[in-house]
Amino acid sequence: MVSLQFQILAESPAGGRRGRLILPHQTVETPVFMPVGTQGTVKAVPQDALESLGAEIILGNTYHLYLRPGHEPIRRMGGLHKFMSWPRALLTDSGGFQVFSLSSLRKVTDDGVQFRSHLDGSSHFFTPEHSIDIQIALGADIVMAFDECTEYPADRARAEKSLRLTMAWAQRSRDHFRAHQHEVPWRNQIEQDQASHERGVPHPSSAWVGSHEAHTQSLFGIVQGGMHRDLRRQCAERLVEMDFDGYAIGGLSVGEPRDLTLEIISEVLPLLPKDKPRYVMGVGYPDEIEQYARLGVDMMDCVLPTRAARHALLFTSEGRLNIKNKQFAEDQSPPDPACQCPVCRRYSRAYLRHLVQANEPLSATLNSIHNLAYYLEIMQRVRKSLEPNPAPAN
Amino acid sequence: MVSLQFQILAESPAGGRRGRLILPHQTVETPVFMPVGTQGTVKAVPQDALESLGAEIILGNTYHLYLRPGHEPIRRMGGLHKFMSWPRALLTDSGGFQVFSLSSLRKVTDDGVQFRSHLDGSSHFFTPEHSIDIQIALGADIVMAFDECTEYPADRARAEKSLRLTMAWAQRSRDHFRAHQHEVPWRNQIEQDQASHERGVPHPSSAWVGSHEAHTQSLFGIVQGGMHRDLRRQCAERLVEMDFDGYAIGGLSVGEPRDLTLEIISEVLPLLPKDKPRYVMGVGYPDEIEQYARLGVDMMDCVLPTRAARHALLFTSEGRLNIKNKQFAEDQSPPDPACQCPVCRRYSRAYLRHLVQANEPLSATLNSIHNLAYYLEIMQRVRKSLEPNPAPAN
Repeated sequence: MVSLQFQILAESPAGGRRGRLILPHQTVETPVFMPVGTQGTVKAVPQDALESLGAEIILGNTYHLYLRPGHEPIRRMGGLHKFMSWPRALLTDSGGFQVFSLSSLRKVTDDGVQFRSHLDGSSHFFTPEHSIDIQIALGADIVMAFDECTEYPADRARAEKSLRLTMAWAQRSRDHFRAHQHEVPWRNQIEQDQASHERGVPHPSSAWVGSHEAHTQSLFGIVQGGMHRDLRRQCAERLVEMDFDGYAIGGLSVGEPRDLTLEIISEVLPLLPKDKPRYVMGVGYPDEIEQYARLGVDMMDCVLPTRAARHALLFTSEGRLNIKNKQFAEDQSPPDPACQCPVCRRYSRAYLRHLVQANEPLSATLNSIHNLAYYLEIMQRVRKSLEPNPAPAN
Repeated sequence: MVSLQFQILAESPAGGRRGRLILPHQTVETPVFMPVGTQGTVKAVPQDALESLGAEIILGNTYHLYLRPGHEPIRRMGGLHKFMSWPRALLTDSGGFQVFSLSSLRKVTDDGVQFRSHLDGSSHFFTPEHSIDIQIALGADIVMAFDECTEYPADRARAEKSLRLTMAWAQRSRDHFRAHQHEVPWRNQIEQDQASHERGVPHPSSAWVGSHEAHTQSLFGIVQGGMHRDLRRQCAERLVEMDFDGYAIGGLSVGEPRDLTLEIISEVLPLLPKDKPRYVMGVGYPDEIEQYARLGVDMMDCVLPTRAARHALLFTSEGRLNIKNKQFAEDQSPPDPACQCPVCRRYSRAYLRHLVQANEPLSATLNSIHNLAYYLEIMQRVRKSLEPNPAPAN
């Protein structure tokens, strides 16, 4: 079975890469920012709005979807793409990060993690094998190895112990994935679609026509090691030996100062294979995602644009706006005068402020659409600047 | 100044009218169902989604908009159309219904109603003149006379007393409206747009090009009288003498049995001028709006489709679905197999059920879009069946 293909179209002197990630459901232009759809929905944003914004890949969270509605129902219904009617690419995390966030409710052993559901207190046990089984049932284009996200700060002994677990679990994730990846619910569907397409038979639903160069899920390993550079190096080298389809840098944006985030990213990137995609998990602010993309990070995700939106915080070319502020009560200018998103083209700051004040649900929707547009536009600009033959400025 | 024009294209033996209501911002095909946008937004539904559904006129609530953000800010920003970026037609109620709902917080005199805000307990006084001033500042295409909505049940003495108030206030509303209607914030804008249009100058914003046969707001009187047929008759006759641009039947759907609602509507309709639009306020269930439209009601509004949607109740061609029910957990059929709305074309019952279960904000949006589509589709079907030359069935 063919996993992802990654083409590097151009590279900048600073290491930034203009690439193309060919996945079963979508060809993704990189560097890419991936909106987070925790429970099978990017909060408050309809799928067609995400498509209009040009989102090519979004995240689902394994922990949340496992608890509700459950991975087995989703598998029986054909996988997460079909369940949430999202024909483009998906990535699922391993559930590790959420499980470790439940600090008082979990117990870690070499085998895995026992935890209690935040919904009803019921007891569950995740192992690397179980996380992979769930992720195969969900059927995202990219799935993640089960890891322990080392907390910050973590002393050397703690970070070493955590890293041993992550490396052992990475191997088990990989072995289990290779043995079971053929079980993905849409494998036959994609192959049937392709066969029909080649015979000239129209698709029953054009939504399921993706790029078919890649036929199966891909698995990424996650580099951990806390803020210890040598542990990060050790982890990266070990994971590269295991040969994953792509590599993530995890355990960042966990409370450390930003120059430390940058230091770890700069340390790890050169250790990863140049021809594989590189993903920094859970970052960041608008200037961060631009900075990391220019250094050679190909993929990033973060809840920040949508979470901030629900708290009335807009990211704009003029800086951050708390749109709830009284100063916007009669401000008829668009949220961001430089933005061409559907919200900025249609609505005023005064109206968005009113929606927050009046606790109207449309507030979360419009604010989220704008913030996502702003993030996606940053990546589009970065991609353009990394193009092989940029048009001369005039 | 020209107010609305109402053209009756065809009439059925039962009295149903296929009409066309020409308003400053939109030509509205009737009979029409009007979604309710209480606080300047149809809850959880973006304006472009309403446009796609074919909504030609929506409601705003004077009471809510007066309190927040205030009619003066809205007037300064060019009126409610511009504030909420809704280029089509708007109707505002008089605020009377909401004020009378605050039963423990209000005090009625001949002059008007003293009440306390449900938001902060602050004290306010509404008179017919004040209600009209607010509605002129908001600038809806159609505004409503200030009335007292008689509660159900109300004995004859109580209904008579209430009716005397409503009739006196109708006259005061009318006089004040005629004296001040030129103050509507968009009057000059519409005239400039038209002049530019006639000179062939492109509009700065095509959104503000409406049908310009009608240049000013229109005022509707409201027939009250409780469930007393002779009082209803007396009120209708008196309002017709006052010569309003259209007539509403209020004080229905306040708890009375449905055959009584129908009886009152049937009693009042023949008393209203045939050449003016007739509006039954605050109804109803899908079968009700169809029934009343076929009897000659031209306009209706109700919060039911959107409020029910937020409580997981879907109206479908197969009856009402409580989409939260476990039976839908793995039901991959569309919410309503007979519906062509964007929600039914894209999402499954299982997905909508998951969104409710997971408390996701997208739930309210998708459920509301479907329910509104269902209501608007009913009216479209009724309009089609009232067309002068229906195509033969085959």
